[in-house]
Amino acid sequence: MNKIYVVGIGPGAYEKMTVEAAKTLESCDVIVGYTVYVDLVREHFPGKAFLTTPMRKEAERCRLAFEQAAAGKTVAMICSGDAGVYGMSGLMLEIGTEYPGVEVETICGVTAAVSGAAVLGAPLIHDFAVISLSDLLTPWEKIEKRLLLAAEADFVVCLYKPSSKKRHDYLQKACELMLRHKSPETVCGTVSQIGREGEQMCLCTLQELQGMQVDMFTTVFIGNSQTRVIDGRMVTPRGYRV
Amino acid sequence: MNKIYVVGIGPGAYEKMTVEAAKTLESCDVIVGYTVYVDLVREHFPGKAFLTTPMRKEAERCRLAFEQAAAGKTVAMICSGDAGVYGMSGLMLEIGTEYPGVEVETICGVTAAVSGAAVLGAPLIHDFAVISLSDLLTPWEKIEKRLLLAAEADFVVCLYKPSSKKRHDYLQKACELMLRHKSPETVCGTVSQIGREGEQMCLCTLQELQGMQVDMFTTVFIGNSQTRVIDGRMVTPRGYRV
Repeated sequence: MNKIYVVGIGPGAYEKMTVEAAKTLESCDVIVGYTVYVDLVREHFPGKAFLTTPMRKEAERCRLAFEQAAAGKTVAMICSGDAGVYGMSGLMLEIGTEYPGVEVETICGVTAAVSGAAVLGAPLIHDFAVISLSDLLTPWEKIEKRLLLAAEADFVVCLYKPSSKKRHDYLQKACELMLRHKSPETVCGTVSQIGREGEQMCLCTLQELQGMQVDMFTTVFIGNSQTRVIDGRMVTPRGYRV
Repeated sequence: MNKIYVVGIGPGAYEKMTVEAAKTLESCDVIVGYTVYVDLVREHFPGKAFLTTPMRKEAERCRLAFEQAAAGKTVAMICSGDAGVYGMSGLMLEIGTEYPGVEVETICGVTAAVSGAAVLGAPLIHDFAVISLSDLLTPWEKIEKRLLLAAEADFVVCLYKPSSKKRHDYLQKACELMLRHKSPETVCGTVSQIGREGEQMCLCTLQELQGMQVDMFTTVFIGNSQTRVIDGRMVTPRGYRV
């Protein structure tokens, strides 16, 4: 049976890919992906055919991959981070029903919550929630409800897609909601360009975060009530001292 | 400056480690860890010194690692999954304040939420919460509150440590709480021994999950209101169809 691999390449650097992801890309004829991600891996896999589609053409990108596989090629669809966290593996399984002769296998990778946490210190050591602030496919009311309940539950919260050109004030709004249940002194951190050139991290309080501008390549971490700064790193203790 | 690497080895198989993790372990003199994890990597890194301590001796294990580093060895402390998700990187940074001459660097890995999701299909495509049912270091009331609020927020919920010998009914209790806000027909999945010999997955409804017994090596996924079964895989759509 023909096979498509949906491969999470991690944050971007070749070395942060899993051994299995690297071997899988090595074994494929065709690598399909969003232009930016293909450019991250291209130099490491010479001799492969690369096919790209722009952002928001996800369904088109999936069918492009399936057509290649149906024609007998071994195909990898790549995603940044992990393909299963706001990635393409779900859509690939959905569209896969149109191509019963092609099997889909997901090769997992390191998602930004995990790679960003390692840069900041250890913010995700205890229970956490991951929330995207993108309202392209999710009503803002739903996102707002999740932010409020996650804050009330004292989760460490990791925010993906904290802003875009059209949504420059969404992080500010999210912080306002968090502040209804979390202290303004809550330890927060941001990381951008994780594992890529220009990687930057910043520690701040929730109150300070509310006034900050970040770009869409930034991952934001909001601590729980126990999160502290230790030697310049953001650390959530493993357990609650009761 | 002497250096300790805190390395997430992923679910267990060598190939699911990042390239960076494999290179780091290769470069170290000493590999420290919980006995079970050391046994998973031992064969791939011949010639290294391996030091182990049993479960629940975490602080002792950290100091063992720091003592080796302070003595001039290059040391890796290994964790299963990612070191930053219920792992050792937080405690290492805390205890690191006692050893100012030793620098701690975290090498990220694939945590069970991500590796388990890839086995089941694509359950974590949208916002999710990760909750451990272990009440060794966290009061049960806190866990209960998080479960309820996560269910109310319609998060996909991933449960770590769903049971132990002393806590055989905790998964059942968690399902009862989830059922206050989620439908009994909610799509759920369990994965055990991810990426190891004997890997097993199971799809079921939330009502069925409530009656199941799972072991502590199992990771449990409870879908959101949109999660469906597609061709035998658990899939959460990327967006809400509004």
